[in-house]
Amino acid sequence: MRTSYHEELDSILDRLVTMAELVEVAIKEGSASLLDADLTRAETVITNDGELDAMHEEMEYKCLSLLALQAPVAGELRIIVSAIRVVFELARMGDLAVHVAKIARLRYPGSAVPASFEDSFREMSEISIEIVGRARAALQNRDAEEALRLAEIDERMDVLRHAQFTQLLAPGAEYSTEQAIDVALLGRYFERFADHAVAVARRVIYIMTGEVPEGEDWPNA
Amino acid sequence: MRTSYHEELDSILDRLVTMAELVEVAIKEGSASLLDADLTRAETVITNDGELDAMHEEMEYKCLSLLALQAPVAGELRIIVSAIRVVFELARMGDLAVHVAKIARLRYPGSAVPASFEDSFREMSEISIEIVGRARAALQNRDAEEALRLAEIDERMDVLRHAQFTQLLAPGAEYSTEQAIDVALLGRYFERFADHAVAVARRVIYIMTGEVPEGEDWPNA
Repeated sequence: MRTSYHEELDSILDRLVTMAELVEVAIKEGSASLLDADLTRAETVITNDGELDAMHEEMEYKCLSLLALQAPVAGELRIIVSAIRVVFELARMGDLAVHVAKIARLRYPGSAVPASFEDSFREMSEISIEIVGRARAALQNRDAEEALRLAEIDERMDVLRHAQFTQLLAPGAEYSTEQAIDVALLGRYFERFADHAVAVARRVIYIMTGEVPEGEDWPNA
Repeated sequence: MRTSYHEELDSILDRLVTMAELVEVAIKEGSASLLDADLTRAETVITNDGELDAMHEEMEYKCLSLLALQAPVAGELRIIVSAIRVVFELARMGDLAVHVAKIARLRYPGSAVPASFEDSFREMSEISIEIVGRARAALQNRDAEEALRLAEIDERMDVLRHAQFTQLLAPGAEYSTEQAIDVALLGRYFERFADHAVAVARRVIYIMTGEVPEGEDWPNA
């Protein structure tokens, strides 16, 4: 009985890693659909999100059942409680990738990204992919150090977001209403990718150390 | 020992209600600062959010400590695990109220809301206040029925959001880039208020019934 319970705990962590991998793909493909105005990729991201939502429901149910049926303590309890939060954060990242893909689809065959914003969104996309990759690695290697380093990348995202507003509102800039809406919302979605990845990292640190990082040096996602 | 533990559980639910009341005030005042271009109110919302963030950290710490030190089972476990999620959702609603207030402050002494969008944002604000009020009542009265009814109001928010985009992009509409950005982001923030309130309601239902509502009739916030 205890063995199968421990196997279930291991399988929970493995499933989180799998889910994080799916999120990495969703962000990568969602970004590509946006930057290359690629309708097929956009549709794939939107369709595949059902799998992430199903995993979210399945994992939440499994964790709540384990809590109810077993009497987990200490490290086991930390894993289960954290897993509930991590699957939620990962599912939200999947939803955000869908939001990005839907904007790409809405503007197809045109591009939702004005040419002068391409570099900015490309970098936002790279940061998002890197940050979720690091969160996945932290989960996979049970590595609190890796998780701690992740908060640094988040700052660059804020700088990019701020620069986008400056560019949109620069004197003489002529963007259409549609472009202004798209840039404002897309920037928000990419910013939130990073926030959610930071929240995942925070839970990895909690699983490994029993401490939840907080305070000024740690973004409260 | 058990008595003081049960007192702690009761005090957790009471603190959630208090936190929900603070969120109600934040949304009410944040909306008023926006609709009346009221700088003082905007500053108050921004300053007061520190209290919500502090409650979030304090409550999360308390719940994780209770999980670690006690061996909660069944209903007690459900309360603690749910409380961790509810404080997170409430803190996010506080952050969103700050986002709204910051946009109001940024545009002061002007208004961030174009005149032709006033009615729409007024209704969004009313829905947000009502939905968080209902979530608070559901928590206060441990009322799963109230929580279930809350998901209905969420639909009206989606209709309003959609209408805002239609209005922004209507042929002949002439909105500035700044106005387009503000309306797009504000609409998003109000939409998210409702999503987070739905997530709170979902946890109240779980506390009371042990079931987490999901599926097509229930928005997955």
